[in-house]
Amino acid sequence: MKSLWLQNNELQLQMNTPIPAPSPGEALIRVLRAGICNTDLELLRGYYPYEGIPGHEFVGMVEKGCDRLLGQRVVGEINAVCGNCRFCLQGHRTHCENRTVLGIVNRNGAFAEYLTLPSANLHPVPENISTDVATFTEPLAAALEIQQQVRVSQSDKVMVVGDGKLGQLVAQTLALTGCDLLTIGRHPEKLANLEARGIRVGFADAVIDRAFDLAVECTGNPEGFATACRALRPRGTLVLKSTYAGKLTIDASALVVDEITLVGSRCGPFAPALELLSTGQVDVKPLIQARYPLSEGLQAFAHAQQRGVLKVLLEMAVDG
Amino acid sequence: MKSLWLQNNELQLQMNTPIPAPSPGEALIRVLRAGICNTDLELLRGYYPYEGIPGHEFVGMVEKGCDRLLGQRVVGEINAVCGNCRFCLQGHRTHCENRTVLGIVNRNGAFAEYLTLPSANLHPVPENISTDVATFTEPLAAALEIQQQVRVSQSDKVMVVGDGKLGQLVAQTLALTGCDLLTIGRHPEKLANLEARGIRVGFADAVIDRAFDLAVECTGNPEGFATACRALRPRGTLVLKSTYAGKLTIDASALVVDEITLVGSRCGPFAPALELLSTGQVDVKPLIQARYPLSEGLQAFAHAQQRGVLKVLLEMAVDG
Repeated sequence: MKSLWLQNNELQLQMNTPIPAPSPGEALIRVLRAGICNTDLELLRGYYPYEGIPGHEFVGMVEKGCDRLLGQRVVGEINAVCGNCRFCLQGHRTHCENRTVLGIVNRNGAFAEYLTLPSANLHPVPENISTDVATFTEPLAAALEIQQQVRVSQSDKVMVVGDGKLGQLVAQTLALTGCDLLTIGRHPEKLANLEARGIRVGFADAVIDRAFDLAVECTGNPEGFATACRALRPRGTLVLKSTYAGKLTIDASALVVDEITLVGSRCGPFAPALELLSTGQVDVKPLIQARYPLSEGLQAFAHAQQRGVLKVLLEMAVDG
Repeated sequence: MKSLWLQNNELQLQMNTPIPAPSPGEALIRVLRAGICNTDLELLRGYYPYEGIPGHEFVGMVEKGCDRLLGQRVVGEINAVCGNCRFCLQGHRTHCENRTVLGIVNRNGAFAEYLTLPSANLHPVPENISTDVATFTEPLAAALEIQQQVRVSQSDKVMVVGDGKLGQLVAQTLALTGCDLLTIGRHPEKLANLEARGIRVGFADAVIDRAFDLAVECTGNPEGFATACRALRPRGTLVLKSTYAGKLTIDASALVVDEITLVGSRCGPFAPALELLSTGQVDVKPLIQARYPLSEGLQAFAHAQQRGVLKVLLEMAVDG
């Protein structure tokens, strides 16, 4: 099969990767579409040692190994877990200490014609969600993880820092809580997407210092972190939603004096993400900026790496 | 009056500082005893711009301005608040945006023969608590703040990093919850204090990685922070109890991947601290390493700055 292969921080198009064989409990999935995420770009920059096929945002068709979903369109949770370690047994399955992670840790990913995942990870895609749109299930679930960790109420003043792919999804999910929301970004055309949905937006100079109960940092850069910090009131909460290339230098004394809570946030629940896509409460279509066939995957990555570009999709097959 | 005066990172003994005049609502307090805290040492190193009399851990005698406590021994909460700002009105009085802080922010402190504080800040010291012991009320309250912010249960595996003044108080208060507690330090003689109270202790090599639900960082140094981080299980909580001289460099991506919560923690409640001292549930006597008269305040600071020294007290008057 065709695949994109990452080795020594270099991506190559391979024409003859073997089609993977599903292990017991796993399904073989023909990939229909996959999205390029910032994590993929960071893997390429060497932020994390990974060799193999990247890609973890996908929609596919079950071809083998999961009778209940055979021939159906599915999305898949990306952590393949052991079920037996102390973290699995405590219910923290996404933190399984023996996990592999699709396209990120010891498991070939979605930038290929086929992938395998445990059947338990798969969710059928409702009919009324297009394949393009369903590709956003994984990052939308990650955005929803925030509300699993932090209570957000209507009276909360909330700020999202970042108007990129993740920031847009986080802002849309938080807007649904009815909270008093402001999204800060650098790109007028991206902020316009959110403004069109009734979300208040602005540049960093629109931030009132020490005014927000909750800030969500979606930029992964130190400037975004600093903006989030200064926006928070004492005893406020800062959710870190992005990974950071390299180390972050913080004013820990300010966190102590203001009794700030910092919350790291990663993978989230798929079912409510699919529900939001199905009911149209979150609109991801404006985020799609380009589609490339897998054979042009290197060009797709080059496009995704350009400053200010939102979601670039890879099409493995044309279906609709 | 005599006082210690901090200016341009230099401490001087002054023999003729004017006795302060209490403002309306304030009391004039004759200081009996005061403790030197790490924050005082950090003020001296220039970690925060402050000019005036330092000192915020004290016991004194009310001489004027608070009828209900006239002639009584008192301790005092260190934040003098406006009562009218948005943070006061939200109940976050220790975060008052117009606050002065005894010996730390725009208010002369306790290393003097007299100080003033709002009467509302004062708590009478129960008869059965000696003046030496009552001097620990403020840092003990700060240790108790942790339990105001984070739920600690008997089934929790908890680690305290640091066997210094603050670590010792934090460890003793957490031990009272019945949690599974380990305190990590570098000084066998300090750890022995805790071991004598039935608290499990060890050096950094005793830490099992990714095993603790809660870690409390009481060292204020990057090594302590790193030890706390590696000890935490995914979704664990790290309480920052110390201020840090300078910036702290952290692996923010690890916080995101492991969904760690970081909680800054500062001043805490005085009433339960006095209760613990009165009932003897916390023993602070082993922490007292030296007493100096105020006139030898510079020597007292030199002693407190030595590596491994616990609490050094200043005696303004001999009472008992």
